[in-house]
Amino acid sequence: MDSRTGLPVVGMVGAGQLARMTHQAAIPLGQSLRVLAQSPDDGAALVATDVVIGDHTSLDDLLAFANGCDVLTFDHEHVPTDVIRSLAAAGHAVHPGADALIHAQDKGVMRAALTKAGIPCPAWSEVSTVEDVAVFGAAHSWPVILKAACGGYDGRGVWIVGDPAAAADLLSREASAYIVEERVPILRELAALVARSPFGQVSVWPLVQTVQAGGICVEVIAPAPDLSEELAGQGAQLAVRLADELGVVGVMAVELFETADGLLVNELAMRPHNSGHWTIEGARTSQFEQHLRAVLDYPLGTTSMTAPWVVMANLLGGPDGGMGIDERVHHAMARWPEVKLHLYGKAPRPGRKLGHVTALGPDLPDVRARAAAVAAYLREGGHL
Amino acid sequence: MDSRTGLPVVGMVGAGQLARMTHQAAIPLGQSLRVLAQSPDDGAALVATDVVIGDHTSLDDLLAFANGCDVLTFDHEHVPTDVIRSLAAAGHAVHPGADALIHAQDKGVMRAALTKAGIPCPAWSEVSTVEDVAVFGAAHSWPVILKAACGGYDGRGVWIVGDPAAAADLLSREASAYIVEERVPILRELAALVARSPFGQVSVWPLVQTVQAGGICVEVIAPAPDLSEELAGQGAQLAVRLADELGVVGVMAVELFETADGLLVNELAMRPHNSGHWTIEGARTSQFEQHLRAVLDYPLGTTSMTAPWVVMANLLGGPDGGMGIDERVHHAMARWPEVKLHLYGKAPRPGRKLGHVTALGPDLPDVRARAAAVAAYLREGGHL
Repeated sequence: MDSRTGLPVVGMVGAGQLARMTHQAAIPLGQSLRVLAQSPDDGAALVATDVVIGDHTSLDDLLAFANGCDVLTFDHEHVPTDVIRSLAAAGHAVHPGADALIHAQDKGVMRAALTKAGIPCPAWSEVSTVEDVAVFGAAHSWPVILKAACGGYDGRGVWIVGDPAAAADLLSREASAYIVEERVPILRELAALVARSPFGQVSVWPLVQTVQAGGICVEVIAPAPDLSEELAGQGAQLAVRLADELGVVGVMAVELFETADGLLVNELAMRPHNSGHWTIEGARTSQFEQHLRAVLDYPLGTTSMTAPWVVMANLLGGPDGGMGIDERVHHAMARWPEVKLHLYGKAPRPGRKLGHVTALGPDLPDVRARAAAVAAYLREGGHL
Repeated sequence: MDSRTGLPVVGMVGAGQLARMTHQAAIPLGQSLRVLAQSPDDGAALVATDVVIGDHTSLDDLLAFANGCDVLTFDHEHVPTDVIRSLAAAGHAVHPGADALIHAQDKGVMRAALTKAGIPCPAWSEVSTVEDVAVFGAAHSWPVILKAACGGYDGRGVWIVGDPAAAADLLSREASAYIVEERVPILRELAALVARSPFGQVSVWPLVQTVQAGGICVEVIAPAPDLSEELAGQGAQLAVRLADELGVVGVMAVELFETADGLLVNELAMRPHNSGHWTIEGARTSQFEQHLRAVLDYPLGTTSMTAPWVVMANLLGGPDGGMGIDERVHHAMARWPEVKLHLYGKAPRPGRKLGHVTALGPDLPDVRARAAAVAAYLREGGHL
């Protein structure tokens, strides 16, 4: 507790854009997010008062960081579970806990939990040898999807494998544990966002459609257009049930495949997630505020939407390596005064997520077009 | 400019709740507000990275603070104009400038400018002696309103004076310069909020009704209910014209009296203002974001409302001196999950502005009732 304000202190391990936007949400709650940063140039370290530089894999650093925090939570999923268990054993509240977070760290553990709970996902198997992959491919069909069990993100650690020989090279050098999955015919990708508190209160936002390019999310449409009420309900129920089954505390994003046969779970993230950035302007309670409420065991806020359609587009670093950012921001604000910009304070680099924009309104094609145009202009300049 | 992000640095003199909420608005713009605080416990100093402790009346402190800032602006109106002129002479961009800000510092200068511009305000006169007050009272009617020309706020520095003798004591001890005004029969108080950039772009939000108790604003209703289109237009035009005439850069609040004969200007504030806190959730662009855009000469954002009715209620410290704040916040969140809280990180004290709440929706009586109920509960506990 902060003795000056009587309000709790949340410590977030990691200081990227998720922590940056969580700090923004902490301010109106009377709080000031404490962040564990790798560098003073991290996105959240540029805007927060209470910045500790340290190593998120070091128990000593985390114990020092946790001192004075009411609860610890995460901007990423890279803290080893044995370290999280040691923090909990030392009396620190850590949300989500190791038993939940492991499902966002290890795809084999996640797939096993889904299968046990009867929650639909692509056919899958743990594999460690070329023979394992060959057996799986023969039982399903080629190509198959080979995934590093741990450490992948934004398309990294995922390979399409056309035959057993193609797996050999990957298995020998890329990771220490793998799963293989059938390649599912996908109609599109969706995401369900849920928050759960230790008390057990759960809230969901409307299901969204996510649009990927090169393994990176480029656009999120809320709510997912042309989604049947039945599937929307199934997606929400699945997310709530999963949050309960896994004992999640905080926000969890459930990445889904929509197929002709219904919804399948692709991946889990146990933290605020790119698929939920639209909630900052698009929902009465943003995922960042809700994550803080949840990890503090505060009652959760209303998740209803503020407009019929909300579209988020990611701002990726352009081919010139940068955005010529201040000049382009100036022009973009003049051309689209109603679109909201979110810049993460990162040094520009081609393909890097430098920020996002949010547009909203009553007409989906118009809203999508505006969000896409701002993002394209900020990336590449040119046509306004 | 911040060399890491290529984005500008705004320095705000003063680190109260206005700076705190401006920092919140700076984060999505890729910026990090630099604040000049009196103490590390100031509301904005608790949440910003770039905090300098110093004296806002010291040119040396301000010059050191300004170094590395693209523009200086203000959380309050207490920086002497000669100091502002020296900053500008040293090459620093200061918005609003001294020639504008003087109108928010000195009520005599402000009234003279309004009178010169033909903008309606109560009958007034500069006074320095009891005889001056007596002459004014005889020409109008008793009681009259005596005001310290400088330094008053939230009802301080304003006295209702029933006869010349009552003025004698005040004139001898309260301030160095005074004005006297007729006591106008007020139907209600309104406020117009305007932003202006150096380029000359101007934007206004809808006129609001402000409700005062004991000289302190307790409630703001947006838009002002039952206001004729004619008066709404007059209020907006008056604010725009005044911003232009005075050369305002940034946000200016124009406090208005609605009378049977139309609108009269009461006071001016040249900074984000309590009457505009509703814009955080209630308008597409908040007054804090707009203030940053304006002082940076960025294009201004859309000011349209996000709901038919938006009501802000201030959270004042209760009679127990505090709010028992964390427990009450918990209960308030459970009872009103749709209402947004804004806590300023201040130590509780009876009557002190500790935060505000914002409710919005389609039904004004419901929205008002919810905002008032949350504020009352956080102040005093009791009935949920």
